[in-house]
Amino acid sequence: MTTRNACLALDAEDSLAPLRAQFALPAGVIYLDGNSLGARPVAALERAQAVIAQEWGDGLIRSWNSAGWRDLPQRLGNRLASLIGAGDDEVVVTDTTSINLFKVLGAALKVQDGRAPQRKVIVSESSNFPTDLYIAQGLMDLLQQGYSLRLVDSPEALAQAIDQDVAVVLLTHVNYKTGYMHDMAALTALIHECGALAIWDLAHSAGAVPVDLRQADADYAIGCTYKYLNGGPGSQAFAWVSPKLCDLVAQPLSGWFGHVRQFDMESGYEPSKGIARYLCGTQPITSLAMVECGLDIFAQTDMLSLRRKSLALTDLFIQLVEERCAAHDLTLITPREHAKRGSHVSFEHPQGYAVIQALIARGVIGDYREPRIMRFGFTPLYTSFTEVFDAVQILGEILDEKTWAQAQFQVRHSVT
Amino acid sequence: MTTRNACLALDAEDSLAPLRAQFALPAGVIYLDGNSLGARPVAALERAQAVIAQEWGDGLIRSWNSAGWRDLPQRLGNRLASLIGAGDDEVVVTDTTSINLFKVLGAALKVQDGRAPQRKVIVSESSNFPTDLYIAQGLMDLLQQGYSLRLVDSPEALAQAIDQDVAVVLLTHVNYKTGYMHDMAALTALIHECGALAIWDLAHSAGAVPVDLRQADADYAIGCTYKYLNGGPGSQAFAWVSPKLCDLVAQPLSGWFGHVRQFDMESGYEPSKGIARYLCGTQPITSLAMVECGLDIFAQTDMLSLRRKSLALTDLFIQLVEERCAAHDLTLITPREHAKRGSHVSFEHPQGYAVIQALIARGVIGDYREPRIMRFGFTPLYTSFTEVFDAVQILGEILDEKTWAQAQFQVRHSVT
Repeated sequence: MTTRNACLALDAEDSLAPLRAQFALPAGVIYLDGNSLGARPVAALERAQAVIAQEWGDGLIRSWNSAGWRDLPQRLGNRLASLIGAGDDEVVVTDTTSINLFKVLGAALKVQDGRAPQRKVIVSESSNFPTDLYIAQGLMDLLQQGYSLRLVDSPEALAQAIDQDVAVVLLTHVNYKTGYMHDMAALTALIHECGALAIWDLAHSAGAVPVDLRQADADYAIGCTYKYLNGGPGSQAFAWVSPKLCDLVAQPLSGWFGHVRQFDMESGYEPSKGIARYLCGTQPITSLAMVECGLDIFAQTDMLSLRRKSLALTDLFIQLVEERCAAHDLTLITPREHAKRGSHVSFEHPQGYAVIQALIARGVIGDYREPRIMRFGFTPLYTSFTEVFDAVQILGEILDEKTWAQAQFQVRHSVT
Repeated sequence: MTTRNACLALDAEDSLAPLRAQFALPAGVIYLDGNSLGARPVAALERAQAVIAQEWGDGLIRSWNSAGWRDLPQRLGNRLASLIGAGDDEVVVTDTTSINLFKVLGAALKVQDGRAPQRKVIVSESSNFPTDLYIAQGLMDLLQQGYSLRLVDSPEALAQAIDQDVAVVLLTHVNYKTGYMHDMAALTALIHECGALAIWDLAHSAGAVPVDLRQADADYAIGCTYKYLNGGPGSQAFAWVSPKLCDLVAQPLSGWFGHVRQFDMESGYEPSKGIARYLCGTQPITSLAMVECGLDIFAQTDMLSLRRKSLALTDLFIQLVEERCAAHDLTLITPREHAKRGSHVSFEHPQGYAVIQALIARGVIGDYREPRIMRFGFTPLYTSFTEVFDAVQILGEILDEKTWAQAQFQVRHSVT
């Protein structure tokens, strides 16, 4: 049985522990939902104040140049690149994950339409994050070219589903519900072998697990900065495109920021070279600027150190829950195998929703996902081993005392 | 000849003058670019601080519900509605103008595809803001259904261009270069008579001139909150769809925020009823929240009062420039007729770019647009008559002394 003192000892020897001081976390809260909305870097407040008071207030329109607003999506992309194995000038931080998926999926289908127009199937998983499936449906509906979506019900079914009819395979690297992590390199190789293109959604991967897009030979990737990257509520998403594919086609959301000569104000669209063609319209700058504060903290460590601690945290959580809550109806749905696990852990419980509400009432913030799933995110930049211990004790008490029974009629829903 | 004292008198009797105190404008600047990036409401700083420190920092994921982040696009839409003649629950503030144009144009073409599939022409103006044309091109290129863009070179040529082949007419209400304002009701009637649908881009109209979408019987509208509405750099755009059309079709960017049951996490997309179907992904909240601070100031006045002052300011500017700078090669390209003028005034000058740089160096911020156009925005919430007078004197001095000659090699480009 791991004791609280043992967890205190783990924290004492944790070389990442000092980074927690760079986050503003409220007292009395154990935050296990950084996979949904990352905690606030202390520096974000000051950065936003500077953007609002000086850059906007005093600089006014001049700040598009003088404060570097114009190329902020590219500069942030370059800072983010090393976390996902991308090269310089291959990433932009802009728009939302849904919008960026529309861009890359539109581009991928266009590339395939030139190479293998008979391929009309998009493969994904039925358990993929819904907006990814919705965006694919919206695009197919728009195109009216006979595309269909082939959804598999388990990762194991993918190999079978990827055949000569498949144009694109759209996968989320780490599943938002189960925490299952795909083998990106192996799957991409399989996808390529079959003549399809691979789009990877890194929403639950970027800043959470090591990702190497170039080494995996991926084709397209999109992802989120408001989860593990701590960019702020709803902060802009990112898009990466393999340099082998980027200049082959224009993406469909051809706004003026993606034009090769934006300020010449020509009436005909001509895409920029490189990833800048994945830009579209004017970005909300205050939110975008704060993304840098999260990246500044990542620059002080590396993904391997973070991964090591992440696995230690999730291992500890699984072990403690299975010890402390053994009498209760909890089912682990996250893989035990390290190579298949992201940085969150999910348990099913028949009253999962109510248990999560009871936990939140006690200051332990996890979240709920249909059906019956209690999801706990572990963010090695600021989660401590002792917090894991304390959270499990509180979970145990709630289950022992059935305090969740009072919580079950509260408001449902939070945003992933 | 209007004197500075006469302008001081105009300011003294201006009932809108006290509203200027609600903006944080830097000393030593005459800001005539609020049509490009509106000035900062004083309240925006505090609002952002509350979002960042309390809502994000302390509230964390809970703020999606407790701080009302989830329905912020709709709540802001309802506050904006009265400025554009829209009804309750008809407007959302979300994404960018380019993205929202893609949504409404995609929907409009789909509606027409059901009604009159032989109509394959989109009419617009060659002088329309480029991103609008680019987005139309991107969508047509994606659809591969034989659509073409028919561009006219003057407002007068529109009537001729709108015929039985036309599916959609896409117009910017107030031209970004010339300040020419279309008669929205008359043109919409003409467009409908011909069986086409009307999309109005209100980027230079919302908060600048009275707009009545319902009375004009418009079909779709999009627009910008970072110009006259003072929402902050790159703040989210808005979309309005006529209730007659809204539920007929889904828009193509079908992200999870537009789903009728967003948090049921179904794998099939089903659009919400009403304007919520025009939502897509998670919005950058800090930037979005500040939009309300600009709307709070509009709530203290009305568009007719603002229009009266706007016309007085633009009349005065034209008159003073033509008096003070009569010796110079300036050509007014903004209509003199009130009914055809928005809230900015543009003059052509052979050295327009250099003159604007020289003005900025003297603290008068206007902007430049290709080719040769010097553009000056007049924002009745915070522009004074005396500023107009002073700006024209400085312009006169620059032209008299040819100080622009030193300025012409500076960096080019700003963002509209």
